Amino acid sequence: MPKKGSKGLGKKEGSTAGDGLALRKLLRVPGGKPMDLAAHDSREMPAGPRDRQAGLAATTDLATPLADLQERLWAASTAGDRRRVLLVLQGMDTSGKGGTVKHVIGLFNPSGCRVHAFKAPTPRELRHPFLRRIKKALPQAGELGIFDRSLPHARLRSRGGTPIEDVLIARVRALAPAAEIERRYDEINRFEKALTGDGVTVIKCFLHISYDEQRDRLLKRLDRPDKHWKFNVSDIDERALRPAYQQAYELALERCSTPHAPWYVVPADRKWYRNWAVSRLLLEHLSELDPRYPKADFDVEEARRRLLEQ
Amino acid sequence: MPKKGSKGLGKKEGSTAGDGLALRKLLRVPGGKPMDLAAHDSREMPAGPRDRQAGLAATTDLATPLADLQERLWAASTAGDRRRVLLVLQGMDTSGKGGTVKHVIGLFNPSGCRVHAFKAPTPRELRHPFLRRIKKALPQAGELGIFDRSLPHARLRSRGGTPIEDVLIARVRALAPAAEIERRYDEINRFEKALTGDGVTVIKCFLHISYDEQRDRLLKRLDRPDKHWKFNVSDIDERALRPAYQQAYELALERCSTPHAPWYVVPADRKWYRNWAVSRLLLEHLSELDPRYPKADFDVEEARRRLLEQ
Repeated sequence: MPKKGSKGLGKKEGSTAGDGLALRKLLRVPGGKPMDLAAHDSREMPAGPRDRQAGLAATTDLATPLADLQERLWAASTAGDRRRVLLVLQGMDTSGKGGTVKHVIGLFNPSGCRVHAFKAPTPRELRHPFLRRIKKALPQAGELGIFDRSLPHARLRSRGGTPIEDVLIARVRALAPAAEIERRYDEINRFEKALTGDGVTVIKCFLHISYDEQRDRLLKRLDRPDKHWKFNVSDIDERALRPAYQQAYELALERCSTPHAPWYVVPADRKWYRNWAVSRLLLEHLSELDPRYPKADFDVEEARRRLLEQ
Repeated sequence: MPKKGSKGLGKKEGSTAGDGLALRKLLRVPGGKPMDLAAHDSREMPAGPRDRQAGLAATTDLATPLADLQERLWAASTAGDRRRVLLVLQGMDTSGKGGTVKHVIGLFNPSGCRVHAFKAPTPRELRHPFLRRIKKALPQAGELGIFDRSLPHARLRSRGGTPIEDVLIARVRALAPAAEIERRYDEINRFEKALTGDGVTVIKCFLHISYDEQRDRLLKRLDRPDKHWKFNVSDIDERALRPAYQQAYELALERCSTPHAPWYVVPADRKWYRNWAVSRLLLEHLSELDPRYPKADFDVEEARRRLLEQ
């Protein structure tokens, strides 16, 4: 378990989770209360590094403790520990889900990571309960799973990708009746509660960017021919729906931020801060899990003697 | 396509694939000829960096071009390019398959990587044709797939993991009759030929370590309590079977190194050299694929104008 003695923000934020900093307390969405995303500054830095250089260094500092914790989680699973971690990344177009996977998940050993980018459901998937394809993509014991809602909303012709999207898109596009959407919130909460009961630590991050930052990022994609493939003209139409999406997100965050599986709003206008914050959230959760290397179940001296004889 | 003008070994080995170095020609197993692994020095450095420091630097230098090529492969897939890459890692216990994934695949964007560690087949899988579970784990268009034969032989109670293992273990342990094993070689070759016809570049690496290096690595695992979980006492018994395994590997390499899907023998006693060599092989293949960013299929100026109006 991380040391919890010091309550103040540690001086070495980012280096260990035992420094008293609890970013998750600062970013956590209090469930059940009305949620106002406009009141969340997407350039806010509630804790941790204050500028880009310090942010990059702090994230780099997290690489070793994160990889160490991941190895311990994996090692423990070989001795029957069923625990695993699921990172859910959500956010508007250009909010940086892909960049987060590249820079944050890139700090981990790829062997133990299972990245799943949800695309629009196939006709076959649409015939099944909406959580079914989620279940199939869950991390196994010892793994770090990542759900990246990958496609821009516009390309999702009908229902979306991750559970929250199945309520979001359905709401904004009026694809499902309100009662059905309410029923889905409850279903998501029950599902996530069952997951946590089954050893899954669920970390849900909403990458929060401003309307202006989104325009800047879209314009940058237009400036670079090697980024044109990421651009979809319908992204522009979707921006016009931003108030509706924002409302839908607010409701989903409010309804589905639960004690067992809270949502975190990550200020994401600054990419380096976003990367540090998500890395830090992972560190805090993994430190709390405190997975242990299994003890040898064989005679070490005997094994050494036999090897030396070969 | 990489420049092929210079035939000599480039001075900046490792920085681009256009430097005239063709490591794959040097490491490639000539199929159909008798194969003698004992004649391959597992400490050999047929090209590239000559010492650890230069090796680490050369591998780091490959990170940017590899990530760039991977992004281009992925981007091309969004425009219908079906091509993808499959890296197969094989080798005796402690040969460094896991370390290769960590250090080489760690250079790539995790989003486009699909690592599959094959475990012993389930009873259900055993009832199906032996290539079935391989097909299910193949990379999708634009992806880099990695097959890591993950479990030590000893833990594979019956048939093994990857196709080659289904012949290896079967041969060493006499689990399948010789005729059945011969039939499987042919089936593997036909399967891999179909894969390459379907846009899959297959890169098969045999990580070659010496008997002494293997003992040293096993002893090191015993020295460190945080490595005991990787140790299995039956690994010691398996070492006694090394001549049989080596023969089985030789036959498999000889029978399954084909023009469309050759095997490469990677000298793997030096971890830094192994990592550089596998990275370099990936670079050479990806450079040859030369994936391109798709051109914009929309009016860039019009999109810019509309965005600026929002």
